[in-house]
Amino acid sequence: MNYCSQCGAPVTLMIPAGDSLPRHVCSQCHTIHYQNPKMVVGAIPEWQDQILLCRRAIEPRYGYWTLPAGFMENLESTEQAAARETLEEACARVEVGPLFSMVSVPHISQVHIFYRARLLDLDFAPGEESLEVRLFREDEIPWEELSFRSVILSLRAYFADRRAGQFTVHGGEVPPPPV
Amino acid sequence: MNYCSQCGAPVTLMIPAGDSLPRHVCSQCHTIHYQNPKMVVGAIPEWQDQILLCRRAIEPRYGYWTLPAGFMENLESTEQAAARETLEEACARVEVGPLFSMVSVPHISQVHIFYRARLLDLDFAPGEESLEVRLFREDEIPWEELSFRSVILSLRAYFADRRAGQFTVHGGEVPPPPV
Repeated sequence: MNYCSQCGAPVTLMIPAGDSLPRHVCSQCHTIHYQNPKMVVGAIPEWQDQILLCRRAIEPRYGYWTLPAGFMENLESTEQAAARETLEEACARVEVGPLFSMVSVPHISQVHIFYRARLLDLDFAPGEESLEVRLFREDEIPWEELSFRSVILSLRAYFADRRAGQFTVHGGEVPPPPV
Repeated sequence: MNYCSQCGAPVTLMIPAGDSLPRHVCSQCHTIHYQNPKMVVGAIPEWQDQILLCRRAIEPRYGYWTLPAGFMENLESTEQAAARETLEEACARVEVGPLFSMVSVPHISQVHIFYRARLLDLDFAPGEESLEVRLFREDEIPWEELSFRSVILSLRAYFADRRAGQFTVHGGEVPPPPV
């Protein structure tokens, strides 16, 4: 951030009075510009013993499989975000169920949130950001071709819970990748 | 948002190619400025059969009681945010436990997240944003003087779960206030 989005004057990085972290503060109108983590919200769409994955048509991780998920938008709930992203990426309609996982990814200031969701019909298809969309049984999951550690963590926990006969809510944290 | 925070040129509100929502787009460097919901993260600090509340020294809801909570910062996890906010607002050290509630507040583009937390000692005190900090048994909770519907929703669920002998994770949504 170089300029104030309110008035267009240059900003400076400083710790405001009563604060403890540096913020971008406008040199002219003195607006403090806070920057905060973003939520990525998605679904684990279920159909009988299968779940729906999307193969990414965009970077990062072009060509890898993932759960339908994306940045939460203003003025929606987390459940609405999960349903919207599933519709956008897999053209699939779901009934959003209970929260399944919430994984912090602090080094990129994101929190990834997944809901279990019931697929309402089989009329799914790749959305604009997907190359391919299909259902997988547990023994078909392409573990080596999955994108994003929060997705891998969530899917491992999902199948472990399903085998144990009880779903719980899972936390977690994805550390920075090894250098 | 009136000006591009990258280059200082005016922004215009438009739907970018391949997008479905209006965004602020720079007229000069074409940066798309996304705006996303913010997370407010807090704790339900427990000491035996009591929980810790803070009386607010700031607006909104000056003088009302609340759980320690605040905006999550970049580069931290949700658990770290809950512990940091409890330290800042109540000068209290906690061991953060399981997720307890996640409540969407879509009309202000926020998601409020509360963790159960174990108070580690009784050396708490009002932080800069609190007038008073104290422990409450269930029958002492000042229900009529609580701030924020997500806090009220979470505390009602907390005591109901505790009476039932089992804590679960609670979702929810706070609608716009009546006009």
